[in-house]
Amino acid sequence: MNDHRLSESDLHRHFGRRGRDLPGRVLIPPGDDMAMLGLDSTDRLLVAADQVVIGRHVRSDEAPETIGRKAVLRNLSDVAAMAARPIAILATATLSPDRDQRWAEALHAGLHETGLAFDAPLIGGDLATHAHPGTPDVVSVTILARPATTDGRIVTRHGAAAGDLVAVTGRLGGSLTEDGRGRHLDFPPRIEEAIGLADLLREDLVAMMDVSDGVARDAARLATADGVGVRLDADRIPRNAGCDWRAAVGDGEDYELLFACRREPPGEIEGVPVTVIGRFESTPGTSGSVLIDVDGESIDIAGLGWEHAGDPPDRTV
Amino acid sequence: MNDHRLSESDLHRHFGRRGRDLPGRVLIPPGDDMAMLGLDSTDRLLVAADQVVIGRHVRSDEAPETIGRKAVLRNLSDVAAMAARPIAILATATLSPDRDQRWAEALHAGLHETGLAFDAPLIGGDLATHAHPGTPDVVSVTILARPATTDGRIVTRHGAAAGDLVAVTGRLGGSLTEDGRGRHLDFPPRIEEAIGLADLLREDLVAMMDVSDGVARDAARLATADGVGVRLDADRIPRNAGCDWRAAVGDGEDYELLFACRREPPGEIEGVPVTVIGRFESTPGTSGSVLIDVDGESIDIAGLGWEHAGDPPDRTV
Repeated sequence: MNDHRLSESDLHRHFGRRGRDLPGRVLIPPGDDMAMLGLDSTDRLLVAADQVVIGRHVRSDEAPETIGRKAVLRNLSDVAAMAARPIAILATATLSPDRDQRWAEALHAGLHETGLAFDAPLIGGDLATHAHPGTPDVVSVTILARPATTDGRIVTRHGAAAGDLVAVTGRLGGSLTEDGRGRHLDFPPRIEEAIGLADLLREDLVAMMDVSDGVARDAARLATADGVGVRLDADRIPRNAGCDWRAAVGDGEDYELLFACRREPPGEIEGVPVTVIGRFESTPGTSGSVLIDVDGESIDIAGLGWEHAGDPPDRTV
Repeated sequence: MNDHRLSESDLHRHFGRRGRDLPGRVLIPPGDDMAMLGLDSTDRLLVAADQVVIGRHVRSDEAPETIGRKAVLRNLSDVAAMAARPIAILATATLSPDRDQRWAEALHAGLHETGLAFDAPLIGGDLATHAHPGTPDVVSVTILARPATTDGRIVTRHGAAAGDLVAVTGRLGGSLTEDGRGRHLDFPPRIEEAIGLADLLREDLVAMMDVSDGVARDAARLATADGVGVRLDADRIPRNAGCDWRAAVGDGEDYELLFACRREPPGEIEGVPVTVIGRFESTPGTSGSVLIDVDGESIDIAGLGWEHAGDPPDRTV
């Protein structure tokens, strides 16, 4: 990759370096699904922001309610990834000036109603317009959350060690249909499932995230310790109908939980299947590798996932 | 105005109607400079979000550090308006795919360093790209803050009554130069000035906001009580060089404090001039009117300000 091309992961590494001079109130720094702040008393606040770009993450002619809903659901999935519960959202939108008031109100309804359905009211934001008609709309949502497990524990992306199991909720792959629609527009954020797993597995649930870029890429993000990689078993990947293992680990936008645990997880949680798909292993001299065993062969799949910023053109809807 | 054209104020009224089913933890609902949440213990958290649209709020060729800085400063001005202090920011950016990594890193530096200078570290966010080169970038910033006055009091937009004085900090007008640059890109958010005023005037500081759309439009937003309007005195408006009273009340993006107080404010605060520019008055049968006395004549100026969403084309930079 060329030095100067926009890359989300390069920029995240850059963000990470900058994070070292953060004040002590930042209990979980940038780089996880959410950051966490300690406030004046004992309260801890989790916060994250994510966006939906029209023509990129949703079709330009998608219904405004659906766009608003997806923008909130993406953020709710980040809350689930920490085993937290949402308390409020804020939203900003920059709209093409040829959108009308009804379109903007329907977008607002999608944001507002999706938030309220998860006890996360829309409490602020801003509306602006682009200078020229036909410019793609952008919707940015910030979500606030608080710890929700019985012991107040938050589950970060860090902590997986060689020998830990890798597991997922639900089924993977095929979130984006050929017409640009599909499950990526409407999915159940695994909030209660995450809290249930954290309460059940306690300290044996060592790390967790949600699958946005595909398990192939996201699993590497749980292998944060030096000399630790991931080995998956293709036969065990739970797939949606019509998906082979490559689609299941590479399509992205599954918004399922991907987690590392130190003992066998339950077979289901809140009625959703839970499947062990592999194991963290010792990989001396390298970190974050993701291999998959297919018919006795071991394939490196770290490049299979979908990077949101430098993504291939065929992922543009 | 046509029924369906995009209007920020119409949409805000719509947002306001929706706000009635908010849970009790929302202590200040949408519609003020920031919303406020009560958390589990005694902590209160303030939060707001605002955005900078390239080609709209800044020139397309503006330096990325400057764009990042303006995006944070706008939010810091909202914190000042509540007499609060910032604790953290989050940012999302949707960039044209022809921006390069260095541009994105410089944008990040502008966000990060401006936040840190006000003890508000950048703790999260997202980077995405538009589908097509040349599409205007959008930067959205969310800011978190907490109460900062000696008695923990927050100053909202509500509370002004007939007889209260209207005052501003600093000087007004001329924030946007002919080349699209000027003070709107870099200004001191009046955080310490606001806290100083609130500590000094206590409950006699009855309402406050920051001037983003011009005093002509913003003063009406402090006249929230039924049958209350504002009367300004053109001779008393503190103007920047080269500005007549119309520019001073209509240009917008002053990011000074505009407040209602029940006794004479100090002549300056933290070295910044404070000027009484008018008074709230009883206006039976109507609310939110803004009149200005010029050479013995009374002029209605409620339409003079700048509405961010439905703004006139000449405000596009």
